[in-house]
Amino acid sequence: MPITVVGSVAFDTVETPAGRSERSLAGAATYFSLSASFFTGVRVIAVVGEDFGPAEQAVFDARNIDTRGIERAAGKSFFWQGSYLDNINEAKTLRTDLNVFAGFEPKIPDAYRDSEFLFLANIDPVLQRRVREAMPNVKLVAGDTMNYWIKDHRPALLEVLTGLDVLLINDTEARMIAGNQNLVQAARAVMGLGPRFLVVKHGEYGATLFHGSAPKGKAAERFRAPAMPLEEVIDPTGAGDSFAGGFFGYLASQPELTPGAFRRAMFYGGVMGSFACESFGTERLQQLSRPEIDARFNLFRELTHLD
Amino acid sequence: MPITVVGSVAFDTVETPAGRSERSLAGAATYFSLSASFFTGVRVIAVVGEDFGPAEQAVFDARNIDTRGIERAAGKSFFWQGSYLDNINEAKTLRTDLNVFAGFEPKIPDAYRDSEFLFLANIDPVLQRRVREAMPNVKLVAGDTMNYWIKDHRPALLEVLTGLDVLLINDTEARMIAGNQNLVQAARAVMGLGPRFLVVKHGEYGATLFHGSAPKGKAAERFRAPAMPLEEVIDPTGAGDSFAGGFFGYLASQPELTPGAFRRAMFYGGVMGSFACESFGTERLQQLSRPEIDARFNLFRELTHLD
Repeated sequence: MPITVVGSVAFDTVETPAGRSERSLAGAATYFSLSASFFTGVRVIAVVGEDFGPAEQAVFDARNIDTRGIERAAGKSFFWQGSYLDNINEAKTLRTDLNVFAGFEPKIPDAYRDSEFLFLANIDPVLQRRVREAMPNVKLVAGDTMNYWIKDHRPALLEVLTGLDVLLINDTEARMIAGNQNLVQAARAVMGLGPRFLVVKHGEYGATLFHGSAPKGKAAERFRAPAMPLEEVIDPTGAGDSFAGGFFGYLASQPELTPGAFRRAMFYGGVMGSFACESFGTERLQQLSRPEIDARFNLFRELTHLD
Repeated sequence: MPITVVGSVAFDTVETPAGRSERSLAGAATYFSLSASFFTGVRVIAVVGEDFGPAEQAVFDARNIDTRGIERAAGKSFFWQGSYLDNINEAKTLRTDLNVFAGFEPKIPDAYRDSEFLFLANIDPVLQRRVREAMPNVKLVAGDTMNYWIKDHRPALLEVLTGLDVLLINDTEARMIAGNQNLVQAARAVMGLGPRFLVVKHGEYGATLFHGSAPKGKAAERFRAPAMPLEEVIDPTGAGDSFAGGFFGYLASQPELTPGAFRRAMFYGGVMGSFACESFGTERLQQLSRPEIDARFNLFRELTHLD
């Protein structure tokens, strides 16, 4: 089943210990779409400026991603500049130019309205909520957010959470939302705010899926998926969005949302996140093939399974 | 096969957000022994003072741990005081009194000399090396260390590493020894110094076993075991030593050291580490039973396995 995703399509300039990449095609919706496109159809809602040309369009076309919901506006696309020189696990933002994103009013093409899966990438929760409300009949809604919205836009974010089935965030974000340092307690508190499923990403240590209200000491309603121990992280930008694309893309491709499907989705999330780190920007995702993805899925199994 | 362990038997005073425990029986060799005793016979080499009385002896006796190698000296036992009030994952040392440990000269009882498994708990690398050299015929030697020895006793530590089959350390220690922030590169560098197997503990995120020289991108020679997501950490002191006890105790109980045995040993390590956190001091380990251990092993499997 196709997924509709709303989020940013942007250009990034990124510095890491491995080098520098200038104005690469990026943005949460871009990483998510490319990643999910290996599993299911993807439809994007975003806004870009005049700097989004045929080369950028071709990246989406090559993966058969539906871009009819990408609005072209006068001006420049969203631009972000960040550095990982001090810490490969945490970006230091050097510059953010919202540009055409400042006035973004998501418009949902009629052709998208039968989507049963909706992903609200990390954007203003007011916009996330608007898109959620415009698509009341979706079967599964997942979303992401970030520290900025948690700290300074909490009421709007809390409204989004009530409309989510799955929230994907990292440890720090989970602890911030809950105001609790213990991850299990924080997870329970976050699920109390709406999402039935919570995916907490631990960076190089993998990710944990929490679901339902697990009785104390019972792991059955939790699942821990690994990350790939990487020899070299070229650029971690977009790893979280790529995780979300693999996770949600795989779920959307399944005939039934069984516990087993969620477990495999967690593995595919980690797999896609690990590929995203192997090149600057979306390069690695553009060149990827499904057999490579499944080979890494099998490595993840070997990495974690007893037999 | 019985394990011989050399390390500290001590008293700890510990403060955590859950409360305070005064002068509890503790020390790396104590946690290790209790944990390993659920899998195999254990023989301890240590020194204690006059404050080590019948109550402390009874803790070892209840688990059939051989204490003939625990020397009784005039004076007080090693004492450590620490606080986890600021950070449940990292102890702040408030006080260390070496006491009888200051003049510790490990003596190996003749009855220990047929041990095929030797564990060098976290003590002065000069002593670790002396015990290692006094037992040249052991089949498998594992050891632990800490930031203090890495920083200020590097030459002695490097000599110990050349005599180890397995080193168990945490992320920070691996990065410190290697002088490299990338965990995979750091692991390779550490293994270049001696140990054929390296266990890197990631606290609440589990642990990774590295072995051999894995080709780039190949996970087959790595294994990632989870930790238990704990609702409440009462006292993390000794979790690493308990991990080592479960890991090495399980290995010593196996007829053959197969890759599968190492994988299961990683799980048992995590299991024993998680129990250690559930009470102050060694209380939980004292009250534990093998069926409880195996039930948690099965939870760890559920937590990580796809089917």
